[in-house]
Amino acid sequence: MDAKEILKGHVSKIISLSENEFDYFFSHFKFHSFKKGQAIISEGDNVENEYFVLDGCLKSFYVNPELKIFILQFAMPTWWASDYNALYTNTKASLNVDCITNTEVLSLSNENREKLCKEFHQAEYFFRWRTNKGYVASQKRLLSFMNNDTRHRYEELLAMYPELYNLVPKHLIAAYLGVSRETLSRLYNS
Amino acid sequence: MDAKEILKGHVSKIISLSENEFDYFFSHFKFHSFKKGQAIISEGDNVENEYFVLDGCLKSFYVNPELKIFILQFAMPTWWASDYNALYTNTKASLNVDCITNTEVLSLSNENREKLCKEFHQAEYFFRWRTNKGYVASQKRLLSFMNNDTRHRYEELLAMYPELYNLVPKHLIAAYLGVSRETLSRLYNS
Repeated sequence: MDAKEILKGHVSKIISLSENEFDYFFSHFKFHSFKKGQAIISEGDNVENEYFVLDGCLKSFYVNPELKIFILQFAMPTWWASDYNALYTNTKASLNVDCITNTEVLSLSNENREKLCKEFHQAEYFFRWRTNKGYVASQKRLLSFMNNDTRHRYEELLAMYPELYNLVPKHLIAAYLGVSRETLSRLYNS
Repeated sequence: MDAKEILKGHVSKIISLSENEFDYFFSHFKFHSFKKGQAIISEGDNVENEYFVLDGCLKSFYVNPELKIFILQFAMPTWWASDYNALYTNTKASLNVDCITNTEVLSLSNENREKLCKEFHQAEYFFRWRTNKGYVASQKRLLSFMNNDTRHRYEELLAMYPELYNLVPKHLIAAYLGVSRETLSRLYNS
């Protein structure tokens, strides 16, 4: 499936645009192909884009002063990723986004998103519901984190992203769960 | 200041509505006054409304099977609260929302929010940015939780809500930080 069809399938779940309207909507996106390991956003960058994943897998993560990494999100196909705080508030990135595998994305700039939202009431509706869903997912993840049962969170993660088990190195799964590799190994082997 | 002026001040930070438009917008909200301790949403409820705080303080929280409580959010004046997962997906509440102090709120139903968003492109813009901000706040809270330094999180909390120190019982601050009362006491006394 090509980039346009993937985005169209995703957008159509929330709004209906005519062929012409969708062509116009799509013309505001840019295609990029990245290699495994490549950085898309690095701490300190100006952040101008958000990324819609077509193929592959991204991670967004934070590195603390002791160089420990914390994974905020894995972004699989049809997920969006960016440093939204930096993007929305026009500040420097405090997060990093890079590629776990070779990854193809569509980027959308802040400027083009706001242009589309201004021009199309439907686009504004789409992005409102996109963020509503992200907000709810983020609240669930927070609760799951607070309610600190690693086995439950591990099972939740694999239920949400069944592909992860084979796709992602185990130390990254540990960094998402916020546990040591040893704790994760005990879960795998029990 | 009356309810209408408080909501107007809040909305005007994001959009400009004429006097008539704002009157119409405001006519979709209902005023409620709740007593300290009163429950607004309880686990298992149907959730039809979100709440804009005018005066006082709400907490939204989860109670796990071992009856331990986890506070997701304190909602002070001009903050919004609900069980957004339940509200947006039309499922039963898994969270609770109640009043830390006597509290005055404006409620907005799901139906009225969607009606306003449909009728007014500006309202859609307002609610998109309201949620964008909530999303970013939620991501920050998650990161702060993962990057597990209680003193830093405690200081962050008091910087964000300086009124909390006097307003909220210490065990609720501990439940927000996800630490025991003893750990919190050590922070207070050091």
